[in-house]
Amino acid sequence: MLEALKQSVLEANLDLPKHGLVTFTWGNVSGIDRESGLMVIKPSGVPYEELKRDDMVVVAPDGRVVEGRYKPSSDTPTHLVLYQAFPRIGGIVHTHAPWATSWAQAGRALPALGTTHADYYYGAIPCTRPMTEAEIRNGYERETGNVIVETFRDMDPMQIPGVLVYSHAPFNWGKDPHDAVHNAVVLEECAKMALHTYALNPAAQPMDQALLDKHFLRKHGANAYYGQSTAERG
Amino acid sequence: MLEALKQSVLEANLDLPKHGLVTFTWGNVSGIDRESGLMVIKPSGVPYEELKRDDMVVVAPDGRVVEGRYKPSSDTPTHLVLYQAFPRIGGIVHTHAPWATSWAQAGRALPALGTTHADYYYGAIPCTRPMTEAEIRNGYERETGNVIVETFRDMDPMQIPGVLVYSHAPFNWGKDPHDAVHNAVVLEECAKMALHTYALNPAAQPMDQALLDKHFLRKHGANAYYGQSTAERG
Amino acid sequence: MLEALKQSVLEANLDLPKHGLVTFTWGNVSGIDRESGLMVIKPSGVPYEELKRDDMVVVAPDGRVVEGRYKPSSDTPTHLVLYQAFPRIGGIVHTHAPWATSWAQAGRALPALGTTHADYYYGAIPCTRPMTEAEIRNGYERETGNVIVETFRDMDPMQIPGVLVYSHAPFNWGKDPHDAVHNAVVLEECAKMALHTYALNPAAQPMDQALLDKHFLRKHGANAYYGQSTAERG
Amino acid sequence: MLEALKQSVLEANLDLPKHGLVTFTWGNVSGIDRESGLMVIKPSGVPYEELKRDDMVVVAPDGRVVEGRYKPSSDTPTHLVLYQAFPRIGGIVHTHAPWATSWAQAGRALPALGTTHADYYYGAIPCTRPMTEAEIRNGYERETGNVIVETFRDMDPMQIPGVLVYSHAPFNWGKDPHDAVHNAVVLEECAKMALHTYALNPAAQPMDQALLDKHFLRKHGANAYYGQSTAERG
Repeated sequence: MLEALKQSVLEANLDLPKHGLVTFTWGNVSGIDRESGLMVIKPSGVPYEELKRDDMVVVAPDGRVVEGRYKPSSDTPTHLVLYQAFPRIGGIVHTHAPWATSWAQAGRALPALGTTHADYYYGAIPCTRPMTEAEIRNGYERETGNVIVETFRDMDPMQIPGVLVYSHAPFNWGKDPHDAVHNAVVLEECAKMALHTYALNPAAQPMDQALLDKHFLRKHGANAYYGQSTAERG
Repeated sequence: MLEALKQSVLEANLDLPKHGLVTFTWGNVSGIDRESGLMVIKPSGVPYEELKRDDMVVVAPDGRVVEGRYKPSSDTPTHLVLYQAFPRIGGIVHTHAPWATSWAQAGRALPALGTTHADYYYGAIPCTRPMTEAEIRNGYERETGNVIVETFRDMDPMQIPGVLVYSHAPFNWGKDPHDAVHNAVVLEECAKMALHTYALNPAAQPMDQALLDKHFLRKHGANAYYGQSTAERG
Repeated sequence: MLEALKQSVLEANLDLPKHGLVTFTWGNVSGIDRESGLMVIKPSGVPYEELKRDDMVVVAPDGRVVEGRYKPSSDTPTHLVLYQAFPRIGGIVHTHAPWATSWAQAGRALPALGTTHADYYYGAIPCTRPMTEAEIRNGYERETGNVIVETFRDMDPMQIPGVLVYSHAPFNWGKDPHDAVHNAVVLEECAKMALHTYALNPAAQPMDQALLDKHFLRKHGANAYYGQSTAERG
Repeated sequence: MLEALKQSVLEANLDLPKHGLVTFTWGNVSGIDRESGLMVIKPSGVPYEELKRDDMVVVAPDGRVVEGRYKPSSDTPTHLVLYQAFPRIGGIVHTHAPWATSWAQAGRALPALGTTHADYYYGAIPCTRPMTEAEIRNGYERETGNVIVETFRDMDPMQIPGVLVYSHAPFNWGKDPHDAVHNAVVLEECAKMALHTYALNPAAQPMDQALLDKHFLRKHGANAYYGQSTAERG
């Protein structure tokens, strides 16, 4: 079942090492079939070079494994919470990509410092609050999803398709698994450049709002004019 | 038409990922045929690995597409302004190369700190002023070109073949598309080393003027003696 | 003799350049056969690209070469001390991996700043005290082992499978040679991210203890639930 | 003539891009035949990927080209001065390798901060004084050699096989071209790690003298015991 989605989730997972986002198995991508509500996700702890389409695990909204011989990624409950709370997203990626993770470890939101950021994120990429001991001890992976959802209470996840989880690492999402990985690559690149920007100018300010509007909206608004069609991206 | 120029623009575009200057489609190179005034430029949002010579777009000085089945790069108006204002340049490249972009985001000009810089740039590589809201909202890409031209009011673009656009990223140029990319690689390398130089010595000063003269002029002056002939470079 | 262990030590040594941990011959991996007490280690100064299984050197606990046509790594006495003091380890790796070595040169322990670290190390990775002149002059390599053992007087080497040797570089270990290299890769990644974390937030604090417990124990405790089985890792 | 030396100089030049020390043609290696006094050096401005053995240029001590269809590297006079002043060296390499060049631009000597450095350099790698305007204007490349020689007035170039030329870049040397490149790779690695060491600990001190003695002398002294024989290195 869901063969096309499995293929798409497999390819998105294989893109993680290609883009230098992962060491060993430190990352996972999932996709959702909104009609059936079923999620397809990478199995836990299997090396990327051995991954096959049929290793992908199909999971129901309640976490039950519907198909697949492996255990799903240990981050599965986080993915499920996000799919439920953010109904327009179709893919999620979690990595420990080093530049973004450094920001998460520093507990700092990543401000929009330039047009590279503005082309994909409509403002700062937030960092969650620290999780409580209770959240860590009881249903940690589910609560990781909940603290992300709490962080986006007043934000549109389609306009800010990613988050830094405090003391942990980034999560990204998008309209499908491929798009989620695309947004993860952008976050990593922006995290690197922002660190260097502050090294050069510790007083650097977030970019001008008009410039942020211009870049985000020429790619994502109703009047987008970048690329060859509205279906295209990148 | 302009098959040789298309080929040259294609190759220069393909050199961007080879030199590590681009992520996804974040870069474009153009070239101009000074006789006809026509510009050849990369299509918008097409991945480098799929680019073919005949995908290149031919554009008239007024921005009209003369040949090509794709839309030209969204930065086309910037290129057109620069070709008009800088009559001796034959190629332009725009990227979001990470080190140079960090300087642009920091809003800092890149001083000449050593001979690597001096071999290609005869002094600091400037950063433009911030663009006004009016410039951003009306003809943004054209105004990006205008603010670059304004920055070079008292500078020779052949002696400083590149610029940092504030909160955005670098533009480079040269006598042809290949040369423009060459200058972009140099800028990226110098941006990286200058950041590290200031980390080691926050009070580092621009290099001695005599040393700057020596290095720039032994490669670019009338009495150049580097390389095998005056036609050669690098 | 010990052909399987030799093969495993060879492969672990070849993984060092694959993971970018070594320049030239700056690294070595060993493994131990606990039954016979014999250690298998890389020969000294032989380039990785020329290493063959039968180049591995078999060494007795007293340092005597039991088999092999080459001299063993000059760090052999350090390995022997560690195998004797840490009875549960089965493999050791020493490199001059650049990020970890920078911490060793700075003389700083590497604090647990996030979950990447917590997945493999149950707390800060210590830096040894400086060695005395007497230790350096008499049996330097053996004393390097002794100062590491002293550093772990009150720590469990299975919970902190690595150390930074002051003014020198890291040593790592694990249940076998492959696992030791795995831990060395993690240390290098954490050393890089921690440096960047402090650049972003000089006041960054070690992570919450409950989060450290959660991540270490879900992979390494009696109730581990990461991966496909308790035998699997990564 | 000197076919073996040409081959050795060619291979050493080709090792520069392999080790990531050069961008474009920013580097050159030479070797000397001490019997005839003739030097073999890379031609000026020829890309590495096109270099052939017979492109190497043979130069007499007075700078006259004895054999070869190309002009020799523009740094030829610097090489000649060094060969004359340092009679025990057999190969020289000059690059703009980015980490070492950053130290040169910062005008800082590179202190011995750890054993990686101590394995090859017996103390700090010095930075020359700034060159005077007269030196820059008259015989610049020769005077670059002279300021290096002046820097080594009270140092043994075999114990410190490299230097940072102020506002410029590193020069390295060794017993032959291969060894010179080896030392250049070490310098680059140490320059990178030292920058990070100071980022982690701005008050980091040079390493203990006994440790410096131990590491340098176990590889280079009369009682060296590293590697398989005294003829071997690395």
